[in-house]
Amino acid sequence: MSVTAPLGFRAAGVTAGLKSSGAPDLALVVNDGPERVVAGVFTTNRVVAAPVVWSRQVVADGRADAVVLNSGGANACTGPDGFADTHRTAEHVADVLGVSAGDVVVCSTGLIGERLPMDRLLAGIDDAAAQLAADGGPAAATAIMTTDSVAKTVHIERDGWSVGGMAKGAGMLAPGLATMLCVLTSDAVTSPDEAHAALRAATVVTFDRVDSDGCMSTNDTVVLLTSGASGIRVSEAELADAVTAACAALARALVADAEGATHDVAVTVVGAQTEAAAVAVARAVTRSNLFKAAVFGNDPNWGRVLSAVGTVPEEVAAFDAAQLDVRINGVQVCRASGVGEDRTLVDLAGSREVHVEVDLHAGDARATVWTNDLTHDYVHENSAYST
Amino acid sequence: MSVTAPLGFRAAGVTAGLKSSGAPDLALVVNDGPERVVAGVFTTNRVVAAPVVWSRQVVADGRADAVVLNSGGANACTGPDGFADTHRTAEHVADVLGVSAGDVVVCSTGLIGERLPMDRLLAGIDDAAAQLAADGGPAAATAIMTTDSVAKTVHIERDGWSVGGMAKGAGMLAPGLATMLCVLTSDAVTSPDEAHAALRAATVVTFDRVDSDGCMSTNDTVVLLTSGASGIRVSEAELADAVTAACAALARALVADAEGATHDVAVTVVGAQTEAAAVAVARAVTRSNLFKAAVFGNDPNWGRVLSAVGTVPEEVAAFDAAQLDVRINGVQVCRASGVGEDRTLVDLAGSREVHVEVDLHAGDARATVWTNDLTHDYVHENSAYST
Repeated sequence: MSVTAPLGFRAAGVTAGLKSSGAPDLALVVNDGPERVVAGVFTTNRVVAAPVVWSRQVVADGRADAVVLNSGGANACTGPDGFADTHRTAEHVADVLGVSAGDVVVCSTGLIGERLPMDRLLAGIDDAAAQLAADGGPAAATAIMTTDSVAKTVHIERDGWSVGGMAKGAGMLAPGLATMLCVLTSDAVTSPDEAHAALRAATVVTFDRVDSDGCMSTNDTVVLLTSGASGIRVSEAELADAVTAACAALARALVADAEGATHDVAVTVVGAQTEAAAVAVARAVTRSNLFKAAVFGNDPNWGRVLSAVGTVPEEVAAFDAAQLDVRINGVQVCRASGVGEDRTLVDLAGSREVHVEVDLHAGDARATVWTNDLTHDYVHENSAYST
Repeated sequence: MSVTAPLGFRAAGVTAGLKSSGAPDLALVVNDGPERVVAGVFTTNRVVAAPVVWSRQVVADGRADAVVLNSGGANACTGPDGFADTHRTAEHVADVLGVSAGDVVVCSTGLIGERLPMDRLLAGIDDAAAQLAADGGPAAATAIMTTDSVAKTVHIERDGWSVGGMAKGAGMLAPGLATMLCVLTSDAVTSPDEAHAALRAATVVTFDRVDSDGCMSTNDTVVLLTSGASGIRVSEAELADAVTAACAALARALVADAEGATHDVAVTVVGAQTEAAAVAVARAVTRSNLFKAAVFGNDPNWGRVLSAVGTVPEEVAAFDAAQLDVRINGVQVCRASGVGEDRTLVDLAGSREVHVEVDLHAGDARATVWTNDLTHDYVHENSAYST
């Protein structure tokens, strides 16, 4: 499992002392080749952390040797000094590994607006480099955890090649450590353009459809490294299929581990004219605090689903507002925008997974967006985090 | 105070038995003229309650005799039967008052997806009509309360004429009874077009800038009735000014009474290229659950402000993401998108009002949007409401 499952990768996870808890907080992933292809997808927030500014440049030429990741500090909103810290981090990794700093991706996660303790971080890099191992993937996955309760790893096997991965983050429901970081590896032979296209195709239907609390991070980063060590040339479609499977598994794991959540909620919109319309309607429902609080209360409150659906503009999603159906865990609680089956038939208390299906009766397209319920613990953890 | 403060209006508030609590739940406001001008502004939700469908038609010709309002049931998502209930309500008011049903505005608030107990409602109308009085405004304001802790009324006096008003709703922070209803009255002489323009101008800068939890109701209605009883002809600008003052006072009262809230938060964006850009940025901040939970925890977490600002697309609001300033209660905690003054200088625990100012350094426009913090009580009340 994890990023060292495919051939051609070494990794390590160590305690650099960035976290007050003393838990591991620095991970290093190295691509030993023979190829050193990289692709990256980053937050679309205009306010981005220094490591995102840096790493966007690193992946631009499709080549990278290593990824260094730290928890314990996001290095966001830290100005030119923070960017210098990221630069220095990459330079140090490059020196230790004998590569170019411009081929070192940097990821950070933690509180915004605080400088990183660079002495400890640089010493941690030395430590991690000394511990790099072909079975170091699990340790790396552990070192990027923040409030995650479990390390999240994946391994998708294909005929003679595979995709491995690790991720941290509990959707945006984690107590303020909202960032989602993910490193994927593959030993398939592919080009930078194909890797980028495959990664983009995968994230659009996986991580982009997880929306715990509607808040967008300054640090979100998903990186794919391919080594070509299997010697097997794959098509872009084959790579996209495996990478999508890996991202889907990790995205589902993020939702399942969302701190403070008591339910994982899949909002599926069917009968849409286009997939984009289905996503827009599903996202409106997953962003309704009223609906999400109702789910926490095990209340199949379909009225709140409908009132969220109704906020989507007509130019975004065509539907007749008088012809909407809603099913919750299979019970059609709303028919033609009116009362359907008895809502007491829906048992939400008994299951962590809640399936909401909205039928727009406007076409054949569909999409699912995952979210969590809005709970006391969400408020507690996000109100108590930085103070 | 309230809707009977201007000349030419009678009102009543009675207990029809729609609420299980036995509290007053039916209000009637009658315009005795000599003029009977009406203007209305309604929710932009595509899923709208039967009374909204009805009342949009009533106000279309600029003339109405009365407004009947009930709490204890929203009559939303109730299908053709629900619309028939609204029609029957208007017919009954019309019969009792000797006017046309097409001149009776209907407003409802309460749980979605439940039919109204029509026998009780119609009997309540008889009762209210019998109690109509020139000092009945406060009773009417009390009868439209749902989870409001206080009746919300206003009276803006001008030279020889005035604007009165009542509103219910606790922003969208009320436990599920999210609807905002507002009736304004004036004894000024004006035309339907001027009344509509004045009301629209007023709501855009008041009720439209209160956003407790980002959820849009199916029932929101703001109605302005003018009687002309003062005999004083006012300009559209004079009317708009007074109506805006009335709406601003009522909107502020909604935020102050938001159930579950411990802080009223004014997010002011300055230095914007346009007022629309300032509103868009302010709204992004007021919709950040992470920021609102931080305020509940008395944490001046400016990083969450910046990460919300950064989600606004460039085509909506121009700014340099590296040049943002944030002040919280006067302390400049963020300068040029980096660390500013010591955040511990901000004392949020000591005041209900929190003032957040974001400077985009992109122009001279500004706007303020009000919201509340995200609290345990919000989650509790919205998870426990309908079950």
